[in-house]
Amino acid sequence: MPSFAIGVDLGGTNLRIAAVDSEGKLLEKLTLGAEISRGRDYVIEEMSTAIKKVSANIGKKHKLAGVGIGVPGIIEKRTGRVIKSPNLPDWLNYPAKEEIERRLGAPVILENDANVAALGEFWMGAARDVDAMCIVTLGTGVGGGIVMNGDIWDGMSGMAGELGHITIEPEGHPCNCGNRGCAEQLASATAIVRMAREAIAAGKAEGLKKAASGNVEFTAKSVFLLALQGDEAAKAIFHKVGWALGVLMADLVNAFNFPMYVIGGGVASGWQEFSPAMFEETRKRSMVYAATAPQDSSAKGNVTIITRALLGSDAGLFGAARLPFVRVKKAAPKRSRSKRT
Amino acid sequence: MPSFAIGVDLGGTNLRIAAVDSEGKLLEKLTLGAEISRGRDYVIEEMSTAIKKVSANIGKKHKLAGVGIGVPGIIEKRTGRVIKSPNLPDWLNYPAKEEIERRLGAPVILENDANVAALGEFWMGAARDVDAMCIVTLGTGVGGGIVMNGDIWDGMSGMAGELGHITIEPEGHPCNCGNRGCAEQLASATAIVRMAREAIAAGKAEGLKKAASGNVEFTAKSVFLLALQGDEAAKAIFHKVGWALGVLMADLVNAFNFPMYVIGGGVASGWQEFSPAMFEETRKRSMVYAATAPQDSSAKGNVTIITRALLGSDAGLFGAARLPFVRVKKAAPKRSRSKRT
Repeated sequence: MPSFAIGVDLGGTNLRIAAVDSEGKLLEKLTLGAEISRGRDYVIEEMSTAIKKVSANIGKKHKLAGVGIGVPGIIEKRTGRVIKSPNLPDWLNYPAKEEIERRLGAPVILENDANVAALGEFWMGAARDVDAMCIVTLGTGVGGGIVMNGDIWDGMSGMAGELGHITIEPEGHPCNCGNRGCAEQLASATAIVRMAREAIAAGKAEGLKKAASGNVEFTAKSVFLLALQGDEAAKAIFHKVGWALGVLMADLVNAFNFPMYVIGGGVASGWQEFSPAMFEETRKRSMVYAATAPQDSSAKGNVTIITRALLGSDAGLFGAARLPFVRVKKAAPKRSRSKRT
Repeated sequence: MPSFAIGVDLGGTNLRIAAVDSEGKLLEKLTLGAEISRGRDYVIEEMSTAIKKVSANIGKKHKLAGVGIGVPGIIEKRTGRVIKSPNLPDWLNYPAKEEIERRLGAPVILENDANVAALGEFWMGAARDVDAMCIVTLGTGVGGGIVMNGDIWDGMSGMAGELGHITIEPEGHPCNCGNRGCAEQLASATAIVRMAREAIAAGKAEGLKKAASGNVEFTAKSVFLLALQGDEAAKAIFHKVGWALGVLMADLVNAFNFPMYVIGGGVASGWQEFSPAMFEETRKRSMVYAATAPQDSSAKGNVTIITRALLGSDAGLFGAARLPFVRVKKAAPKRSRSKRT
């Protein structure tokens, strides 16, 4: 009997559930509202009921390998406890794995949502043909995830891959994480809006000022649309985003020498406006990238690719579903991958 | 019959050779002058002759697992070819592994010297009780090496672990690597001397000026000795070194969440002068460190240690000798390690 896994993406707005087989084929997908405000017990109950329903259906012809859940926040690896989640305030120190396993009677694996998105892109998305990669997710914040040796590298206590908090400008804008000028303060949607408001306050951005004043929903997308229309101040902001990502990518390439670096999240839609500056900075700042960039003939087969994510919000679903396949005691054979050594 | 390996450290001044058993016991050690200027053929011949001599002796009671060699420069992983080495100019694109194997008739593994030092500290030094770590080596330049899953992480093409070229100040001092303000420009012995000369030129460092003018060998150590005596300008330089290392350590802790980060190289002797600023910055800038630092009671068993290297220049010898044990088709059983997941 072929096996399948359940992947769950617990976001701020939606709770999404998918059944995926061991080859990555989507068998069923379900979207519920994530009624976080009704409390963790309610959310856990809803989730468990939905998982049971999907499993009962698919389980007729497939064997359940387990359930993987992507959660925004810090998860304690050993216990599956949610240590802290800004979006799930009442999940503080909550033994989520234990609670859900008790309801389902199946192995449950929790992981940070950015890590899970990395595993999704690695398994079925942009990085499906390489054997190691990391993702940088540009959303409200900047998340990160690292995949090596077929699984997420989540470190000693599940906190690895915080690539959005790597320092770009050591005396830059303060971040909630305690650092200053980290990538999140220069390349998130929040940072783009902040930089736009700074430009408006400095009186140097008439186009942005107009857009902001007539728009209660002035977002990173508004700035992007203005940049596309050639507005200089908006273009300068995306140039700064690209510059910051270039510094970050150079750091990552120098440290990891991975074959692929994936950029995801909503802000990745602005690729056209930020990527030229990003590539220019990465090449200038990383000798490893300069020696392995795609156009460089000396790269000799080992090429470093920096590219956009492919799966969008489904990355988290696929990555979560992948977790039981790689972590529940060899429940399914690992898909063979091309090696590039 | 117990097995042993030969570790070779090919430095700028000395060529050192050691025979080490699979438990890390040093069986024999030999130091020759590294007569680099006589050309690569001469060096290879000398090295091979010495290895044969040591092997013949130890080989009476032990089986040779292979030969590991640490080389300063970029090594092509797959072929064991030296792509580029600043200190070995005539080794450009030189198939060193092939040449040495032909002379010895035994498996030879080449690795970058900073990577090998990391493996040495992991196997027998500061990180012998943890299961993942990285090292930052503060010497003339700043090197780096990463160890995970029992072996060096050297990336797609052997270029991973260039931790000395991670950006600290994006508009800082230019580096030969193409970047600006990388760790090497703020925390190497070379950087310390440069910062001292900058302070002298700015007319703000009488003590340094006196020390430099009366000393043809004005080095990082001269600056350190002045700092120890309380010289404010010298102390400020080591404070800056610590600040830069703090930014770097915060980046590494956020990315890797390893249990240990080791600082080696000659400049590590200045620990007393730079480490207070380093720890202060790391704690401020990394939420992961803040949550796992040793004094923090919330760390719950998972503690992040930043510490000095233990083996000094022997790290390279032990690390090189470890290579055949981990890479030559399971020639010897791996030493079991404490797991902390």
